[in-house]
Amino acid sequence: MQLDRIRFQSYKDKVISAQQAALYFKDKMTVGTSGFTKAGDSKAVLPAFAERAKSETIAITLITGASLGQTTDTDLANNNALYKRMPFQSDASLRKKINEGTILYIDQHLSETAELLENKHLPKIDIAVIEATYIDENGNVIPTTSVGNSATFAHLADKIIIEINTSIPLEFKGIHDVYTSKSYPNRAVLNITATDSRIGQDFISIDPKKVVGIVFTEILDSPAKPTERDPKTAAIANHLLEFFENEIKEGRLTNSLMPLQAGIGKVANAVMSGFAKSNFENLVMYSEVLQDSTFELIDSGKMSFASASSITVSENCYKNILENFDFYKDKIVLRPQTISNSAEVIRRLGVIAINTAIEFDIYGNVNSTHISGTKMMNGIGGSGDFARNGYLSIFVTQSSSKEGNIISHVLPMVSHVDHTEHDVDILITEQGVADLRGLAPRERAKVIIENCVHPEYKEELLDYFNRACARGGHTPHLLEEAFKLNLRFIETGSMKK
Amino acid sequence: MQLDRIRFQSYKDKVISAQQAALYFKDKMTVGTSGFTKAGDSKAVLPAFAERAKSETIAITLITGASLGQTTDTDLANNNALYKRMPFQSDASLRKKINEGTILYIDQHLSETAELLENKHLPKIDIAVIEATYIDENGNVIPTTSVGNSATFAHLADKIIIEINTSIPLEFKGIHDVYTSKSYPNRAVLNITATDSRIGQDFISIDPKKVVGIVFTEILDSPAKPTERDPKTAAIANHLLEFFENEIKEGRLTNSLMPLQAGIGKVANAVMSGFAKSNFENLVMYSEVLQDSTFELIDSGKMSFASASSITVSENCYKNILENFDFYKDKIVLRPQTISNSAEVIRRLGVIAINTAIEFDIYGNVNSTHISGTKMMNGIGGSGDFARNGYLSIFVTQSSSKEGNIISHVLPMVSHVDHTEHDVDILITEQGVADLRGLAPRERAKVIIENCVHPEYKEELLDYFNRACARGGHTPHLLEEAFKLNLRFIETGSMKK
Repeated sequence: MQLDRIRFQSYKDKVISAQQAALYFKDKMTVGTSGFTKAGDSKAVLPAFAERAKSETIAITLITGASLGQTTDTDLANNNALYKRMPFQSDASLRKKINEGTILYIDQHLSETAELLENKHLPKIDIAVIEATYIDENGNVIPTTSVGNSATFAHLADKIIIEINTSIPLEFKGIHDVYTSKSYPNRAVLNITATDSRIGQDFISIDPKKVVGIVFTEILDSPAKPTERDPKTAAIANHLLEFFENEIKEGRLTNSLMPLQAGIGKVANAVMSGFAKSNFENLVMYSEVLQDSTFELIDSGKMSFASASSITVSENCYKNILENFDFYKDKIVLRPQTISNSAEVIRRLGVIAINTAIEFDIYGNVNSTHISGTKMMNGIGGSGDFARNGYLSIFVTQSSSKEGNIISHVLPMVSHVDHTEHDVDILITEQGVADLRGLAPRERAKVIIENCVHPEYKEELLDYFNRACARGGHTPHLLEEAFKLNLRFIETGSMKK
Repeated sequence: MQLDRIRFQSYKDKVISAQQAALYFKDKMTVGTSGFTKAGDSKAVLPAFAERAKSETIAITLITGASLGQTTDTDLANNNALYKRMPFQSDASLRKKINEGTILYIDQHLSETAELLENKHLPKIDIAVIEATYIDENGNVIPTTSVGNSATFAHLADKIIIEINTSIPLEFKGIHDVYTSKSYPNRAVLNITATDSRIGQDFISIDPKKVVGIVFTEILDSPAKPTERDPKTAAIANHLLEFFENEIKEGRLTNSLMPLQAGIGKVANAVMSGFAKSNFENLVMYSEVLQDSTFELIDSGKMSFASASSITVSENCYKNILENFDFYKDKIVLRPQTISNSAEVIRRLGVIAINTAIEFDIYGNVNSTHISGTKMMNGIGGSGDFARNGYLSIFVTQSSSKEGNIISHVLPMVSHVDHTEHDVDILITEQGVADLRGLAPRERAKVIIENCVHPEYKEELLDYFNRACARGGHTPHLLEEAFKLNLRFIETGSMKK
């Protein structure tokens, strides 16, 4: 415990244990905690609450920034400590309960949760738990590796518990730009005109009267899994780089492209890494997560600035960041997710949005969340915020998966739509690129089937499309067959004929 | 012909006939014309081109603001003068060709067409045809009853044809606020902070070198059909007003609500008219179309200001507006549709979006465009711009339709998704209101089935939902039955069991 991390005199006697803090939680409360893509989450209080719930019937509505790290969501789910969860998760045990229907889950655009709370369209926050690097002289919180929805939780909560993480160096002070609207629902202009614009303060304002406890921890963020490039992701990355090169040739982009956003995961990370060996330069990022690839691009001199809401990197990358923090400090900024994912800013800056799809259909509708139309995977996250408002909306996925390509990721009709054809410009699989700009649905289908579908499924999809066209319609479909690949998979374990 | 409407000296000798103007059109050209919801469209040149196409093989890509009036789209479609059409239409003959696949159609968010053009994601505009009230001393155009995409077309086109409509009084000068971004894709802040903010100029800038002809016409806009309130639309309007009254009671809204947007059509118009007899006051509108109901609300003193991209009203209402133009002039503004429908502004102002759905499903996904999943009706229009970004996203529709309620407008799964459940807050039918805020999918389904479904379909939808839940999933579905009501309708002409 390092009491010098509490610089506000009247907080000094508020230090309590995680177990004591967890006693503030009551059944049916709404709790808002820091944490965005496993970064900056509560590592003491939430786990202590999960532990308490082992021997007690108690369940809360838990609202976070995005996914949590450690085994927190697992433990909360397994101990029946969650009544409702939002706006994002990526935990196997929690997912199981969500799909059983025993935990309720709301899948939200990550930009919107804070607004819904401020507008009172969601229940009031009873308790906020916020991870801090330290508490300054005025009682305000210097955040850690994410900002997420923390400022909103602190603003709206009745009680606040601060979790000081001593593993975060004091130098983190200054990398955050915390802006929250002074008025809702009518707001002021967000005066961000470049990725490095600053419009807020570098701390989270806290009303000292609300602080009921301060807990110390030194647990590190859960690291991102390092991702290996495999031939498919490498092919997708190459297709994307070629696409950009062609855009430059056509005079639509310059060598610096436009601010980049990339979703989380193997494919998006490989795609971003691909830039390191490209001819592009002075790249900037306006995204929601800074991943290993972001720092690789900064290291290689390709990227000059990166804005997001969190830092989620592998163990080695994190070690490197800490050792060279002075080098990175003026090249990154972490913002609240209402700002990193703001429609206003994304559209103004002209962000290129690169997100991973679970699957898409022959007309360009994208499913990012549901397996077989029913089972939640993780959630829509920020993909909709960026895809809807970006300069270019690009979705990537492999054309097929599993041993023997038993699953096609291109379907006649997706059984769940997260992004409609109106919002999708470019689709890329390891097979190739479908550039949908300026194409009507019947044109889209031809290009998607020709360029993106795995050879094993091409004939069947083309046959579906042709027979649907014969029946007519702006978006030709055979409703009685639209889900035939899904149903075949459910029945036989394979989408193949 | 009134030459005093051409105040720019060097244009005086550019007056030509509509037939001469139409000769500038070449096969495969891309033409951009004014016109938004039947207002301010080309009433001479486009019809002359349609006539020319009767005896000549020639087809163009036609981009407008939104729908055209008169019989223009009908004639263009029937004379095979269209290769591709975007971003919206509402014409029966054109619709038929689109659904046959003989005319290609791109259904776009109305906010985006101009941006796609400026970003070169759509083909270059060869010719722009812009309706004008008059041409000022500097050769610039004072628009008429709509702004739409006209400023963008004028900016990007190689050649411009101006169509002066002498039926529009000169007093229209001043009601437009034409702002276009100076740079793309990276743009400046749109400094609109209230519905009456002005950030542009009251004319469309024209490069005189591009003007190849000026055509005179005196044809009036096609009037909107006056809509009679029927019991169903009256019930929907009442439900909505009660909903708002309750929001005020709950402290989420004041008596002035937030800026209102309403889609076109019988239901939305009835809903807006409902406000005239309400207790709300100082209402403002930030919408895409000013309809009869807007002027009724201004007349009744309920509405103090209304912003949109066009005026589309009935014959009587239009007569009243012209006779009392001084009274209305400082209470309305017409903007380019990139601004009236801007994500940035809609979110900043906290617009309440009220749009008509064709149908929705038990989880709150909305279909605004396709009949039976395949046949285009009109298009998504601005509904997505507003629903996605508004403070509240409300969709209204009747629960069932046709003699004997053979069509249910609530389905297990919509066969086409325009608005995903992430973007839908409130659903209203004449049966009641489903308030989806803060609800997970399984909760949503219960509320929607209970409150919005027609009694004839309640049992079947509940049975579907219960059996789907038994199978599991975050969003429970039985894929093999998801479209059973649609398929029953296709087979038997009725959705009823």
